Amino acid sequence: MTIQADNEASLTMDIGSLADAVLKGDRRALARAITLVESTRNDHRADANALLQALLPSTGRSIRLGISGVPGVGKSTFIEVLGNHVIDQGHRVAVLTVDPSSAISGGSILGDKTRMELLSRRPEAYIRPSPAGKTLGGVTRRSREALIVCEAAGYDVVIVETVGVGQSETRVADMTDMFMLLLLPGGGDELQGIKRGIMELADLVLINKADDDMAALAKRSAAEYRNALRLLHPRSQHWKVRVQTCSARDGTGIEEAWQQVLQHHAALQEAGELAVRRAGQARDWMWSEVDDALLAALQDDPAVCEQIPLLETAVSEGRLPPVTAARQLLELFLGQNPESKS
Amino acid sequence: MTIQADNEASLTMDIGSLADAVLKGDRRALARAITLVESTRNDHRADANALLQALLPSTGRSIRLGISGVPGVGKSTFIEVLGNHVIDQGHRVAVLTVDPSSAISGGSILGDKTRMELLSRRPEAYIRPSPAGKTLGGVTRRSREALIVCEAAGYDVVIVETVGVGQSETRVADMTDMFMLLLLPGGGDELQGIKRGIMELADLVLINKADDDMAALAKRSAAEYRNALRLLHPRSQHWKVRVQTCSARDGTGIEEAWQQVLQHHAALQEAGELAVRRAGQARDWMWSEVDDALLAALQDDPAVCEQIPLLETAVSEGRLPPVTAARQLLELFLGQNPESKS
Repeated sequence: MTIQADNEASLTMDIGSLADAVLKGDRRALARAITLVESTRNDHRADANALLQALLPSTGRSIRLGISGVPGVGKSTFIEVLGNHVIDQGHRVAVLTVDPSSAISGGSILGDKTRMELLSRRPEAYIRPSPAGKTLGGVTRRSREALIVCEAAGYDVVIVETVGVGQSETRVADMTDMFMLLLLPGGGDELQGIKRGIMELADLVLINKADDDMAALAKRSAAEYRNALRLLHPRSQHWKVRVQTCSARDGTGIEEAWQQVLQHHAALQEAGELAVRRAGQARDWMWSEVDDALLAALQDDPAVCEQIPLLETAVSEGRLPPVTAARQLLELFLGQNPESKS
Repeated sequence: MTIQADNEASLTMDIGSLADAVLKGDRRALARAITLVESTRNDHRADANALLQALLPSTGRSIRLGISGVPGVGKSTFIEVLGNHVIDQGHRVAVLTVDPSSAISGGSILGDKTRMELLSRRPEAYIRPSPAGKTLGGVTRRSREALIVCEAAGYDVVIVETVGVGQSETRVADMTDMFMLLLLPGGGDELQGIKRGIMELADLVLINKADDDMAALAKRSAAEYRNALRLLHPRSQHWKVRVQTCSARDGTGIEEAWQQVLQHHAALQEAGELAVRRAGQARDWMWSEVDDALLAALQDDPAVCEQIPLLETAVSEGRLPPVTAARQLLELFLGQNPESKS
C-alpha cells in the first residue's frame, strides 16, 4: 500500500489545483484524489468534500456499470476482456472493486493489478482496488465517491465490481445504472452461494465459460434463467432483463454484452428514467450515509459500547424485550428520553 | 376506533394484573395490552415495556406464520379458511395485519372484521387490524410486540398478514418463522405488483383460486414457479421451498398447506434453526428499532427538519455531494462534528 502512503503524505496540496489536475485527467492526481475521499482521517474529510464539490459539475456523464458474480465465475477475466473491448471502441474505463472482505484486510492492490494485467497496462484504463474500511457503509460510501472522481477525470465507463456473496450487491446496484450478474453454466447451484435477492437486481445475466464442452450446458442454463426471470419483478419498466452466454476466455459474447449495456443506457435515457434514478440514488445515498453515521456514532459511544454485548445477550436469550433494549441504548446515546425527540 | 378509545382510557390499570389477565387469555385484557404496546404516547411506553417484560417468559411457543400476496389474490378468504381449519385441529389462532397503507389511514378494524367474519366469531380466534402509525418502522415494531402479547395469551398460531406490495414483507419475514406467498394462476404478471425480492422470501408458494376453469392454469403456474424457485437462494438450508395450488373458496389445498407449515416448523426445530433464527430476529429487531428511532429523532429535530428539503433538492440536482449533505444534517443533529464520534 505504498502508493496510498505516498498520497497520504501529499494530501496537503491545494484542493483547487488537485481538482484541476483531476479534471485534466492526470493519473497521479486521480489516485491522490481517490485516496483523499477514501481517507478516514477527520482532517481530510473537509478537503474531500471541497474536492467533490469542485468536481461535481463535471460528473454524471459516464455509463455506471455494476458487475457481480461469485468467485470462480471468471469476473476478472471478463472485466479485463470487456474493458479492453470498450477501450478499443474509443472509451476510457475505470474499474472499482467493492469487496468488504478484502476491504477489511486492507484492499488488494496487487491482487487486482495482476488479475487484470493487460487492462491495467492501458493508458485509457484505471483500476482501483477496494478501499480499506471497517464497515460496508464506509466501503460503499467511498466507492461512490471514487466513482464520481473517476467521472470527473474523464472515464466515460465506470465499472463497479462486487463479489456477489455479501451484503454489497444492493449498494452497488444503487450506485450504478445497470447491474450485470455473471453466472456459471449449470443448474444454478452456485446461486446457493449468492445472497437472496441478487437475481432480481440483474439487468443483464451472463452465463460465462460457455466454451468447449460447456457451451451446450450454458445455452440450457440461459434458457432456464430466462424462464425464471420472467417470474421476477424487473428492475425497470423500460428494460426487459436479458440472459446471454459468453466466454471471457475465448472473447465470445463480449460485444453482444456491451451492446446490451448501450441499449440499456439508451432505453433508460430515452425514458427519462436515468436522470430520475440518479437523482433518487443521490438522495438515498445521503440518507444511507446519515443512517450509517448515526449508527456508527451510537456504537462508538463509550457508554453505549459497554452495554451492547450485555443487551444483545439478554435479547437473544429472551430475557429482555428488544424494544426495551433499544430504548436503553438510545437513552444512553441521546442522553435523554428518545421518545421526546421522535 | 371506539374500541381503542375505550382502551386508551382504561390503560391506567395495574400492569401486573393486566399481565395476569393476558396470561389467563382474557380477551379484553389482550385487546387492552395490545393497545398499550401500540400506543405512541410516551407515558404509555414505560408501562408497555414493563408489560412485555412480564409476558416475555410465556412467549415463543407459537408457530409464527407470515402470509403475503397482492390485493385480489384472496388473502382474507384464505386466512379465514386456514384459520378455521387450524382451530378445528385444536389450535388457537391470532391474526395480525401489517398494512402501512391502512395504518396511515388509522387501521381498518371494520374492514378486517367483515373480511374474516366467520373466523372473527370464533372464541379460539383473535383478529387484530393494523395499528395506526406514521412509519413502517412504527407499524412493524408494534406488530412484533402484538405478536408477543398474543403468544402470551395462549395463541399457538400467530398469522401476520401483509399486502405484498410495499416495504413491509421483509420486516414480516423477519418476525415470523415461515413466509407464505399467495399468487394467482397465470404467468406471474401480478408479480409486477410485488416488490422485488419477495419471491425469495417465500418458504411456501400457494397458487390460490385453483378452481373451476382456472385449475389447469394454476397447475401450470405452479410448475413454472417450481422451476423459477430452483434457481433462487432458499431462505433455509433445512427447507426446500414448496409450490402448491389451493382454492380458499372451495377449501381445497388448505390441509395440504397446513401440513407444509407443520413440516417446516418441525424441520427448523429439529435442525435447531428455529431457536437460532428467533434469537437473531430478536437482535435484529433491537437494532432496527435503534435505526428507526435514531432516524426519527434526527428527522424530528427542528434544526434538521428545516434543512432536509433544501439539502434533498440540492443533492437531487447534483449541486451538493450526498455525503456533504449528510454531514450537514448530522452536525445539526449531534451538535458537533460527527466524525469525532464515529
